[in-house]
Amino acid sequence: MPLNDLSQCAVHTMTNKPWSLRQCCDAYAAAGVAAISIWRNTVAPEEGGVGLEEAVKTVKGSGLAVPAYVRGGFFTALDDADRQKAIDHNKTMLDEAAALGAGQVVLVVGATPGLPLAEARKQVSDGIAACLDHAQQVDVKLSIEPLHPMYAGDKSCVNRMAEARAICEALRHPMLGIAVDVYHVWWDPDLEREIELAGQQGTLLGFHVCDWRVNTRHLLTDRGLMGDGCADIAGIRAMVERAGFDGFNEVEVFSEHYWAMDQHDYLALIAERYRTVT
Amino acid sequence: MPLNDLSQCAVHTMTNKPWSLRQCCDAYAAAGVAAISIWRNTVAPEEGGVGLEEAVKTVKGSGLAVPAYVRGGFFTALDDADRQKAIDHNKTMLDEAAALGAGQVVLVVGATPGLPLAEARKQVSDGIAACLDHAQQVDVKLSIEPLHPMYAGDKSCVNRMAEARAICEALRHPMLGIAVDVYHVWWDPDLEREIELAGQQGTLLGFHVCDWRVNTRHLLTDRGLMGDGCADIAGIRAMVERAGFDGFNEVEVFSEHYWAMDQHDYLALIAERYRTVT
Repeated sequence: MPLNDLSQCAVHTMTNKPWSLRQCCDAYAAAGVAAISIWRNTVAPEEGGVGLEEAVKTVKGSGLAVPAYVRGGFFTALDDADRQKAIDHNKTMLDEAAALGAGQVVLVVGATPGLPLAEARKQVSDGIAACLDHAQQVDVKLSIEPLHPMYAGDKSCVNRMAEARAICEALRHPMLGIAVDVYHVWWDPDLEREIELAGQQGTLLGFHVCDWRVNTRHLLTDRGLMGDGCADIAGIRAMVERAGFDGFNEVEVFSEHYWAMDQHDYLALIAERYRTVT
Repeated sequence: MPLNDLSQCAVHTMTNKPWSLRQCCDAYAAAGVAAISIWRNTVAPEEGGVGLEEAVKTVKGSGLAVPAYVRGGFFTALDDADRQKAIDHNKTMLDEAAALGAGQVVLVVGATPGLPLAEARKQVSDGIAACLDHAQQVDVKLSIEPLHPMYAGDKSCVNRMAEARAICEALRHPMLGIAVDVYHVWWDPDLEREIELAGQQGTLLGFHVCDWRVNTRHLLTDRGLMGDGCADIAGIRAMVERAGFDGFNEVEVFSEHYWAMDQHDYLALIAERYRTVT
């Protein structure tokens, strides 16, 4: 069933990368988009953002819901000091997420060239474990986002729903779950079963939509908008809904092609594709 | 343990794409490479090759072993006629492989935009099944090569060892097995177990080596030579050897970077990396 309206639609600020947080808030609210997922670069001054206080004011004033603050994680490193730094950074992000009213911090868990994958996976589990008490204190969840296997070299050593589930089952904590992103998992034959399991275990925290372009030109910045590619987006949305998910459908597209467009025209296209092919 | 010598080394003709079949044969034999895996574009006149008769003469004259003829498969299509055409083409490739003295035809199984993945997977299994009698008649095996999930859109709907195993177990045929390519499977946490299972089931037919570059610039033509990237090549070779594999280690690298080099210099580099970091 098409979505028809934008009442469950969220857009990630990175989708409209050329815009500031205020521009995103104003445009999304005006377009009837219900929610915004906030990337830290729009908030943290050291990443070019407006500062937390100003960001909180802007977001609260917009009336938009905030499903997610993006992106924590990156727990892997070649030495202990860097691993501790990553844990501290994730705690800072949890604090910022709480201030922004975000329900979760999305985790891109990390991978480090030169570090064996098995060791990296252990570091990730340990790093998440070290943040869970803090997550509970500030009442913001942590969601592991399995990343496409093409990012296993340097971004994420957790590449399938099953691997994220293994961490959730090992740590078994009410503040820990999974964010399902169509881009990363659409190809996985176990997807339906894993989504169902996540639903049963109460770990289905987020759902990100976009598309896989058949002739992908770049590994990072050539994602498709819904309808541009071959992923069965509506089918996967049906899976998460059958599994009990009733959160926002978060539009997260990194695309040099779309970033080069007039962003208001682009947002109108996002809304159209959201209503018709998501 | 480093390999030290080239007695188990094969090189794919596509690795030295600028060379003709004769140039490959001459250079590999002169370098002490033991075997050549032949891509069809060097053979079939309609793909720019020298013709089967000439190819057979060249290869036999070189004294090189021929572990594989590459690449059959592409069984998926939107209509029956195209599916039948694919089956016929694979039978032709089996005949050509037999003439060339190749032990197996490697299968890139196919994927078709617009065709649901579950349906594509069924078509693949059916297509392979339709070729197995012919494989037995000409005594050439078929090896399913699971391709990296980034090719699930248009090249292969079989993306992990476990999925290839499921097909092998369903069809259970002495002429069917799996080719393990480091590039496609290095990230998979189930890899060791799956290689062990393939060893036990007698389906471990091929082993391809190359590397995953951390900053991959192109999805098709930016593979790394062994040592350029982050895949644990020696570790995976140890896995296939523990599982009983004693065939050739086939160097298969598609790389605009290396194709632009003097191919003799490149072959010397291949031999060095093969001996030291494979």
